Amino acid sequence: MRLYVTPASPWVRRVRVVIQELGIADRFDYVQTKWPHSWGTQTVTTLSPDFAAATPVARIPALVTDTVTLTDSHAICDYLNAEFGAFRLLPREGAARWQALAVVAIASGNLEAQIMRRAELLRSDKERSGDFIAKMRDRQMRCHAAIETEHLSSFGDTFDLAQITTAVACGYDEWRYGPGWRSAAPQLADWYDSIAQRPSMKITEPAETPQS
Amino acid sequence: MRLYVTPASPWVRRVRVVIQELGIADRFDYVQTKWPHSWGTQTVTTLSPDFAAATPVARIPALVTDTVTLTDSHAICDYLNAEFGAFRLLPREGAARWQALAVVAIASGNLEAQIMRRAELLRSDKERSGDFIAKMRDRQMRCHAAIETEHLSSFGDTFDLAQITTAVACGYDEWRYGPGWRSAAPQLADWYDSIAQRPSMKITEPAETPQS
Repeated sequence: MRLYVTPASPWVRRVRVVIQELGIADRFDYVQTKWPHSWGTQTVTTLSPDFAAATPVARIPALVTDTVTLTDSHAICDYLNAEFGAFRLLPREGAARWQALAVVAIASGNLEAQIMRRAELLRSDKERSGDFIAKMRDRQMRCHAAIETEHLSSFGDTFDLAQITTAVACGYDEWRYGPGWRSAAPQLADWYDSIAQRPSMKITEPAETPQS
Repeated sequence: MRLYVTPASPWVRRVRVVIQELGIADRFDYVQTKWPHSWGTQTVTTLSPDFAAATPVARIPALVTDTVTLTDSHAICDYLNAEFGAFRLLPREGAARWQALAVVAIASGNLEAQIMRRAELLRSDKERSGDFIAKMRDRQMRCHAAIETEHLSSFGDTFDLAQITTAVACGYDEWRYGPGWRSAAPQLADWYDSIAQRPSMKITEPAETPQS
């Protein structure tokens, strides 16, 4: 299987942590992609032909298997969990699945806000909206706080897709925007400091994406 | 169950079409939400307290049941399909699920681009990026074309989640941005003209969101 990645993307990291937790890292060819900083506002025209052919969305991650091409992390995680994880990271159905998806939806909303804020920061001074940056930051803080107050106490022993997505949202916020998020969710920050020591998290720590 | 909606949102429409196709419309209280046009760049402070309490992401749709709150359409559709549809609109697992999710990911990427373009158009002239609008339009056209060339011929008899998401992406593009998308995917447009006559699509045709 071919997985298109960058070292900065939290959506990629989420998939890579799932792969590490399932112990299937050697089944993939990891294809590094490069992005000019202009990706925030412009169609990127320097994508490799194989990547461009694989995904009309033109975002990472994208997974190409012999039988299917999946172009977002939701679909990829669902696929890997079922085909290679016997539903260990996300139950196949029932109340436990819905509780996990409740957390995934909040953590994913947080990640989307973090990425949109990043794209905003890459705009020219003239087109950058301070209001939009504040709106995204507000959403990030609300999402961290909601995970802490409504879900953290029911996190179980398995580092499942709900916890993985939450941990990646904490990690990207810290890496890109600093420790400010910790004051919105101090108990979540304590949990994150512990879970960040797992090998799957250490191996996938973010780094800047190579520019094309 | 309580479902927070607006008549304009394609993410809401996707859920509402699923509900119509499953024949469970009478199980929901539909709560209309209002949004000022400033939502494109500013945190909305006029949300009703119950909606704000339900979702830290502060986006629609959001579904509140007796046991779980789901704050994005991916989680909601997955839940409804399993709990009320016996997996009729999306197979529980296996190759048919992954093929459907491949389509869902492309159509969802298209919908995201359409909404981000809408938010851009709501910005002040000064902060609006013509490049960003063009980038989103490019993505929309690539996604429509990819569905047509790679997936349309394998659409089956069931109006399933892959087809529903595709139809909603066609419908929002047409409603918000006009018929320009049709030249990128003329066969898909023919399919859409036919599927748009289904009662589930007619009942959920978009209309402008009430402003707060």
